[in-house]
Amino acid sequence: MAKVLTSRKENYAQWYNDLVIKAGLAENSAVRGCMVIKPYGYAIWEKMQAELDRMFKETGHENAYFPLFIPKSFFSKEADHVEGFAKECAVVTHYRLKNKEDGQGVEVDPAAKLEEELIVRPTSETIIWNTYKNWIQSYRDLPILVNQWANVVRWEMRTRLFLRTAEFLWQEGHTAHATRKEAEEETRQMIDIYADFAQNYMALPVIQGHKSEGERFAGALDTLAIEALMQDGKALQAGTSHFLGQNFAKAFDVTFTDKTGKLDHVWATSWGVSTRLMGALIMGHSDDNGLVLPPKLAPHQVVIVPIYKNDDQYDTVCQKGEEIRKALLKKGISVKFDKRDTQKPGWKFAEYELKGVPVRLALGMRDIENGTIEVARRDTMKKEIMPVEGLPEKISALLDDIQEGIYKKALKFRDENIHYVDTWDEFVDTLENKAGFIMAHWDGTAETEERIQNETKASIRVIPFDSKQEEGKCIFTGKPSKQRVLFARAY
Amino acid sequence: MAKVLTSRKENYAQWYNDLVIKAGLAENSAVRGCMVIKPYGYAIWEKMQAELDRMFKETGHENAYFPLFIPKSFFSKEADHVEGFAKECAVVTHYRLKNKEDGQGVEVDPAAKLEEELIVRPTSETIIWNTYKNWIQSYRDLPILVNQWANVVRWEMRTRLFLRTAEFLWQEGHTAHATRKEAEEETRQMIDIYADFAQNYMALPVIQGHKSEGERFAGALDTLAIEALMQDGKALQAGTSHFLGQNFAKAFDVTFTDKTGKLDHVWATSWGVSTRLMGALIMGHSDDNGLVLPPKLAPHQVVIVPIYKNDDQYDTVCQKGEEIRKALLKKGISVKFDKRDTQKPGWKFAEYELKGVPVRLALGMRDIENGTIEVARRDTMKKEIMPVEGLPEKISALLDDIQEGIYKKALKFRDENIHYVDTWDEFVDTLENKAGFIMAHWDGTAETEERIQNETKASIRVIPFDSKQEEGKCIFTGKPSKQRVLFARAY
Repeated sequence: MAKVLTSRKENYAQWYNDLVIKAGLAENSAVRGCMVIKPYGYAIWEKMQAELDRMFKETGHENAYFPLFIPKSFFSKEADHVEGFAKECAVVTHYRLKNKEDGQGVEVDPAAKLEEELIVRPTSETIIWNTYKNWIQSYRDLPILVNQWANVVRWEMRTRLFLRTAEFLWQEGHTAHATRKEAEEETRQMIDIYADFAQNYMALPVIQGHKSEGERFAGALDTLAIEALMQDGKALQAGTSHFLGQNFAKAFDVTFTDKTGKLDHVWATSWGVSTRLMGALIMGHSDDNGLVLPPKLAPHQVVIVPIYKNDDQYDTVCQKGEEIRKALLKKGISVKFDKRDTQKPGWKFAEYELKGVPVRLALGMRDIENGTIEVARRDTMKKEIMPVEGLPEKISALLDDIQEGIYKKALKFRDENIHYVDTWDEFVDTLENKAGFIMAHWDGTAETEERIQNETKASIRVIPFDSKQEEGKCIFTGKPSKQRVLFARAY
Repeated sequence: MAKVLTSRKENYAQWYNDLVIKAGLAENSAVRGCMVIKPYGYAIWEKMQAELDRMFKETGHENAYFPLFIPKSFFSKEADHVEGFAKECAVVTHYRLKNKEDGQGVEVDPAAKLEEELIVRPTSETIIWNTYKNWIQSYRDLPILVNQWANVVRWEMRTRLFLRTAEFLWQEGHTAHATRKEAEEETRQMIDIYADFAQNYMALPVIQGHKSEGERFAGALDTLAIEALMQDGKALQAGTSHFLGQNFAKAFDVTFTDKTGKLDHVWATSWGVSTRLMGALIMGHSDDNGLVLPPKLAPHQVVIVPIYKNDDQYDTVCQKGEEIRKALLKKGISVKFDKRDTQKPGWKFAEYELKGVPVRLALGMRDIENGTIEVARRDTMKKEIMPVEGLPEKISALLDDIQEGIYKKALKFRDENIHYVDTWDEFVDTLENKAGFIMAHWDGTAETEERIQNETKASIRVIPFDSKQEEGKCIFTGKPSKQRVLFARAY
């Protein structure tokens, strides 16, 4: 059978793009940099949202919704923030169109110019802190633990489906606290939740740590991140959680009276993950035949394909298939029964391989005679014949096994691709010939970090939480260092 | 106790605004016409979303996501549509800001002007049909049954929280079909789903019917709507479903090959409900003491308030309260246990009345001695003492009773306020002195409809599906009519 995808070896970037499009996940739209998320891709995103939303609510967060537009002047209130976000953005300047005089279409009505331009939110700290000002007077009003599911826009010049798009979907948590300690704990709690989600739902091992000063969120005192390794040896930042200190509270004058009657500025955090996670999920596990989805996020965990030669056989096989579908459903397994007679079994097999359905069941006349069914798992491509008796329990266990198997495979790959290097030559050689994560010493200065990045395109992904203290020398300057940091080329 | 709300009698519009703000549902933002939906309001919206989404999926629809921005030229492709939507809209003209030369803030960078302006979507027919063009070749690709949950922007001059805002949240279904019949059936199915949702979840009776030609969606051949009656006697359009014929398929050149090999344009529908439903829910049931929420959409169905005089009592009452909370939760009832010792019981009673929690339980020392609890229902404000034994079953039944009671009350009010009138004087008098729905004869012309509206501010809400055929004379022109239509002043 002809391959529908470019292979990873041949051209990794092309393989990714082919896969996203051919598996029906997303496509480019008529608007530069904006994607259409197609139903199959959106169904995966919905599964991600549901789990994350549950995790947020279990830790006391509530959802709310803030305006899409932010007055231009708000961006100037926090000095770092304006540098980081207000530059490449969509600017609304007018609020009306009018018919052209020649009758050919519409044009902007110059009489309908806004007094102050509005920015389509690239992130919502400013409008939210401007709102919190009215919600907070006393320590009794704290903490505020609010999350928003929303679309945001950043005017990216080079875009890639899911990984970097002008408009993307995300959640942004924005919390307000009475003490520094509480805000720092919240910052850490949320990156832990993201790590939990990445590992236990996306089946992607991640390394957690602090961003270096140069890589911090614009306006943050500390940025925590989770970093995953893709199959081409490049890192992907999959989620961030920011300790904002009192910066936004000061910029928007948000104060509260503490228990002793003293007035202080409020402490803040913000944290987010986006549809970029879709890119991480796709690149983390998939192969040259298509997607490989972890069962916990697969829109359909199982697909049943009937095998038949004529109408009589079709009826018999469909009847049995329907029984099996119901038995699996009852066990809480999501099942698609593809009864279409417009497509052949071979076409369907290839289709569900491409779409990464974790388990494929094929049911024919001989199976019905023998009380068996063919069970194929997508991750290892292994097939076996199983008795239909007790199938739901076995499939349920198989799905758990696949979830774990996918994670272990990714973990093994990740661990095999963490390189400890101690010299500049080794560092450059590893980047060129092995790729992956590199743990190396760094002198802690922004200048060195920038020079390393300029020379190699590798950046400091995180200073890992679990990087132990040890004496060492910076690979670039030879200056003393007390801890290795995680380098990689990144998406 | 001082009333926190203006009474309905005193000033209905003010009562509504007070209620939305004081119950913590929403507030105005720093951006003209854009609201902030606060956590309590958003929790109700999430409940609505969850039920509607389930109903959509059960009828075979899938979710997807299309771009926020629409190229200006797309609006000129469907002639009616541009008139209806492209006029009052947010227009993105630039994609970059730069620092001002005086260092004071940022300004639009004139060098970053877009070649073609982008419109922030007021509705998505154009971008979606431009996308469907690539999805549809043959009858095998049909139907497409897609829904999108999204934000949209219409530049409204006079805005009111939830009822009319520049940005609002909604869902928009966009379906593509091979035949006119199938598209018409879909249009009807979706308005039936909206009516089901309004009646069985929002507890709001609605009248379903066709919009008159003048009130149709821009670009539709037929618009179906559900109309609810608010307590001030004004109508509120709560949902619409449009049969778009082949208009958008023709505008965007979307054709398919049917089973016989013939090329034809695709048939379309679109349908939507928005955060406006929040306004309908609030105005439909609430009273001068605050919100009245139907149990099926209440974020908390039950609140437990402990009554105590000292720390020992607090511990005892909280322990018992916690047992009760768990027992109710186990029965699938959502419960808030307000253990805060910073607020007094009386304050909490008023708070939950204002927030419309359907059932309030108060638990004190005497209750614990007697094995009882005080149960107060929000809708009728009636209280009774119940044994704690068997409480979950009783509360569950009580919640059903409240859901039904709220609906019946709204239905009685609605039915008492449908007036059948046959003369112009009666019509005008009814509008002035009774308000409500008016069933009257109309000669079927757009001209008469417009003149009636200009003279009375009453419009034709719908031509009801169940309006029976009868001979009559138009109340305005005296010309013959075969069917009464539904008039009202409306939100």
